[in-house]
Amino acid sequence: MSATFQDWMKTIQAGMETDMDGYLPAAGTEPAKLHDAMRYALLGGGKRVRPLLVYAAGELSGADSAVLSRAAAAVEMIHAYSLVHDDMPCMDDDELRRGKPTVHVAYDEATALLVGDALQAQAFLVLADASLPSARQVQMLRLLAHAAGSAGMCGGQAIDLDSVGISLSLEQLERMHQLKTGALLRASVVLGALAGKDLSIEEMTALNVYARAIGLAFQVVDDVLDATADSATLGKTAGKDAADNKPTYVSILGLEPSRALAEKLRQEAHAALAPFGDKALRLRELADLIVQRKA
Amino acid sequence: MSATFQDWMKTIQAGMETDMDGYLPAAGTEPAKLHDAMRYALLGGGKRVRPLLVYAAGELSGADSAVLSRAAAAVEMIHAYSLVHDDMPCMDDDELRRGKPTVHVAYDEATALLVGDALQAQAFLVLADASLPSARQVQMLRLLAHAAGSAGMCGGQAIDLDSVGISLSLEQLERMHQLKTGALLRASVVLGALAGKDLSIEEMTALNVYARAIGLAFQVVDDVLDATADSATLGKTAGKDAADNKPTYVSILGLEPSRALAEKLRQEAHAALAPFGDKALRLRELADLIVQRKA
Repeated sequence: MSATFQDWMKTIQAGMETDMDGYLPAAGTEPAKLHDAMRYALLGGGKRVRPLLVYAAGELSGADSAVLSRAAAAVEMIHAYSLVHDDMPCMDDDELRRGKPTVHVAYDEATALLVGDALQAQAFLVLADASLPSARQVQMLRLLAHAAGSAGMCGGQAIDLDSVGISLSLEQLERMHQLKTGALLRASVVLGALAGKDLSIEEMTALNVYARAIGLAFQVVDDVLDATADSATLGKTAGKDAADNKPTYVSILGLEPSRALAEKLRQEAHAALAPFGDKALRLRELADLIVQRKA
Repeated sequence: MSATFQDWMKTIQAGMETDMDGYLPAAGTEPAKLHDAMRYALLGGGKRVRPLLVYAAGELSGADSAVLSRAAAAVEMIHAYSLVHDDMPCMDDDELRRGKPTVHVAYDEATALLVGDALQAQAFLVLADASLPSARQVQMLRLLAHAAGSAGMCGGQAIDLDSVGISLSLEQLERMHQLKTGALLRASVVLGALAGKDLSIEEMTALNVYARAIGLAFQVVDDVLDATADSATLGKTAGKDAADNKPTYVSILGLEPSRALAEKLRQEAHAALAPFGDKALRLRELADLIVQRKA
């Protein structure tokens, strides 16, 4: 009998904490302040949605768990660096993240800048050290770089910055989020699949449909939670989008239509997984989690 | 008859300008402000010391020029991103770079932060697209990530930040610079060599001795120039180290002993290249350039 979804998640979350600890220079390694701050930014919790997606997709390709661990850590390092930089005063100027002071508050701005820069490099290093056929490894490194850069996460962030106080169409908002958060969520799913034996083109296409749907759903739900939950539940400042005059699904569509959209995307994600049968159990459960989460 | 050193340099510098233009998303590609700022940060000059080192080392291994171009661009993108971030107000707070306003002055701080982040990702993308045997390509991607991260450039930058107003020993200063600027200069030399046919272990060792010597010489000369040249010649603010109370070779050793050290390192670099004969002509000339430059 397979583990419950909760147990499966807890096992991976705990494993990632241990593994990522080992993928970073040990605490106290010189320069100690930088390495301490990198550990502060990466370790000690978070939902680890991206690692969970890597592992869940890895079940489709029968990927080795040691390889999945490195791919998951690489994606999480990119995600963590982006949070550190996004929280800085020149960007979102946030003081709270996962219920803790943000890196530039706990340390200083210069250290936060370097922590982000060094975590990005570390992501590529960790993936480059995975035990994989070299051609596949280059493909995965390339995919991660593409998802992280100006055609992916950084590009979405740039559109977000330029959208403050501007009235976006639903299409423009979707494009922004498909880059800002969607690119890395999609990369998590695809990297997990690529870490094992080859899937067919049809299977990879189905997986991309799934990844696109949950990527968008993730952001729709984020906007709903920002508008409805409190800071203590979120572990970050709630109501910030409205206060910052940022366009959101809630501001464009309204609250209930946003919830309905998230549910529609959840169903699309499920439909895309049909060809995979039982092997896609965890991906289905993650789609449910992403849409039904409370924080 | 081979080209003069000046002609060789000009050919590579011009070629890099064209090639790097092609390795970035075209001007106007959305998000346009980010892509324009990335082009502003990377293109339009600079000495291109790192690309020159890549090409010069590539002569030892008979590397293909299309591969060298991508390796050189990747290193230069890492270098360019580090300058953009170093110039930001929370770091060195510089307003002038290569005679032009720095990115956060010409655009804004948030854009400068994203430009650096996106250029780092782009570096790995450009190298991942080089036409190389896959195992070698993974090795080169790994080497670049290592040189850029907390065990290399970012680590050196962190030590530098923590050293303001502190009295460093010569050994501590050397360690800081071996990371801050040395790691990427060494990576340039090694990447150029790895881009072609295999060198022997003895040859790679000799090349590392060369790379270490010119990496250090580069910084010693930087400190000498900061203390002696004017801003117009340097294209950046002169006398900044002393004003910022930063430890330098000049502040620890004095001016003339610093010049003598640079000359000694130049001779070490030449000696290391002896086994390579004529194939190392450009590496020799670059050692001379690094030590004898006026800006």
